[in-house]
Amino acid sequence: MIIVGELINTSRKRIEKAVREQDAAFIQQIAKAQAEAGADYIDVNAGTFLEKEEAYLPWLVQTVQAAVALPCCLDSPNPAALNKAMSVHRGVPLINSISLETDRYDQMLPVITRAPCKLVALCMGQTAMPTTSQERVLAAEQLIDALVRVGIDLPDIFIDPLVQPVSVDTRMGTAALSAIGAIRERHPQVNIICGLSNISFGLPERRLINRYFLALALGKGLSAAILDPTDRAMSAALKTARMLLDQDEYCSDYIEAYEGGILSNT
Amino acid sequence: MIIVGELINTSRKRIEKAVREQDAAFIQQIAKAQAEAGADYIDVNAGTFLEKEEAYLPWLVQTVQAAVALPCCLDSPNPAALNKAMSVHRGVPLINSISLETDRYDQMLPVITRAPCKLVALCMGQTAMPTTSQERVLAAEQLIDALVRVGIDLPDIFIDPLVQPVSVDTRMGTAALSAIGAIRERHPQVNIICGLSNISFGLPERRLINRYFLALALGKGLSAAILDPTDRAMSAALKTARMLLDQDEYCSDYIEAYEGGILSNT
Repeated sequence: MIIVGELINTSRKRIEKAVREQDAAFIQQIAKAQAEAGADYIDVNAGTFLEKEEAYLPWLVQTVQAAVALPCCLDSPNPAALNKAMSVHRGVPLINSISLETDRYDQMLPVITRAPCKLVALCMGQTAMPTTSQERVLAAEQLIDALVRVGIDLPDIFIDPLVQPVSVDTRMGTAALSAIGAIRERHPQVNIICGLSNISFGLPERRLINRYFLALALGKGLSAAILDPTDRAMSAALKTARMLLDQDEYCSDYIEAYEGGILSNT
Repeated sequence: MIIVGELINTSRKRIEKAVREQDAAFIQQIAKAQAEAGADYIDVNAGTFLEKEEAYLPWLVQTVQAAVALPCCLDSPNPAALNKAMSVHRGVPLINSISLETDRYDQMLPVITRAPCKLVALCMGQTAMPTTSQERVLAAEQLIDALVRVGIDLPDIFIDPLVQPVSVDTRMGTAALSAIGAIRERHPQVNIICGLSNISFGLPERRLINRYFLALALGKGLSAAILDPTDRAMSAALKTARMLLDQDEYCSDYIEAYEGGILSNT
């Protein structure tokens, strides 16, 4: 299971302030907390700055990597910002994201072929967000084909089925889950990743919903998730579901989490 | 989703005392609490009394049904006790349980054919507990064949895959889950039921494990569960997972649970 720690995102007020003030210590503290809680990648997103993103994204990469020995997930649709961030990144980054939208795909191609990287690929059609499971599976097939053709290995492709809110349409949970199941069955080697929180948009007790959606998605073959690894209840959900799905030899992660106090009162 | 409320079982000290003292008021209070929390059946089990079970099981049925307008789940391997309980039961009971063990099957046959009933059928081989998914699916097929031959309708058969502890063998979670998926695919009409708590035997924070196992099993096609419907966190798990699996039109059960305070701090 691959965890992308989502906390360093300028859509969060405290992070935006820290980036604007170039407060490296604060950013590094958040990076360390996520690394200690088990993150495999630290997501960096400076998207709210628009014009300054090209400066801030590489600054975030350097700031984070000065504190933790982890690769970053470079979270931007801006090819220029991504190029600058890749230039300073040590190791193989995960780039979030590419999709089939023609403009975006064409602009991303030189970025993803310039140096080794892993890629989050969104199951979006050429013009619209997916609704059905079939649309997601079709988009995944087209993305996998296209990315393999330009030399990306299957395990370096992270398919994101694009979760949408059940509050808008109660079929959105099963649409995403059944897409995950179908993609996993066809492509045992690709990674499948989710941002979880859209599923609960518009409903109360969102974190409860996100936790159970994570468990259900793991049951279908999810292999990566973008989440807050310092959220104790979410972490408990992850460890419990992984144990139940035979992904935790001797139940040792679960028992370690119990001994670390992560499971109680969740 | 069919909920069997599990609390009236003489393996619990307070219940054993109430049955011994014929304390109808206490039993009725537990029955009402489970009915109000959404139980569809009230399980009655007087198994610890052995010799007096034939008297106590029908007493429990009458006591429960005097308080709540629900059918009972008659939980006993004793054909004589079951016969007496069926004689006083109003409506169609759920009988727990039958299996392929030759003696048990032969003794149960006259009980289950004497009056309309629904049946929990355990995926046990003729001599041993199942370990693999395949053993469970095979037992389920044999049970469904045999029960249909004696006139039981498919929706009246509740297949129980027999959950075993992940602490003993980490493959036990996926063995039960994949059996549920395979049985659901072959038999869309049968019910599939689980007692959840065995999954967590020998591990800490058992209720956490039971909740996530419930969600994963629902994701595979579980349609009934034996559980404590008054356990708020378990109830929150059930309502959240059902909503995510498109079993809650307009998310109305979930929102009602939220307004009733069932979801908070779970």
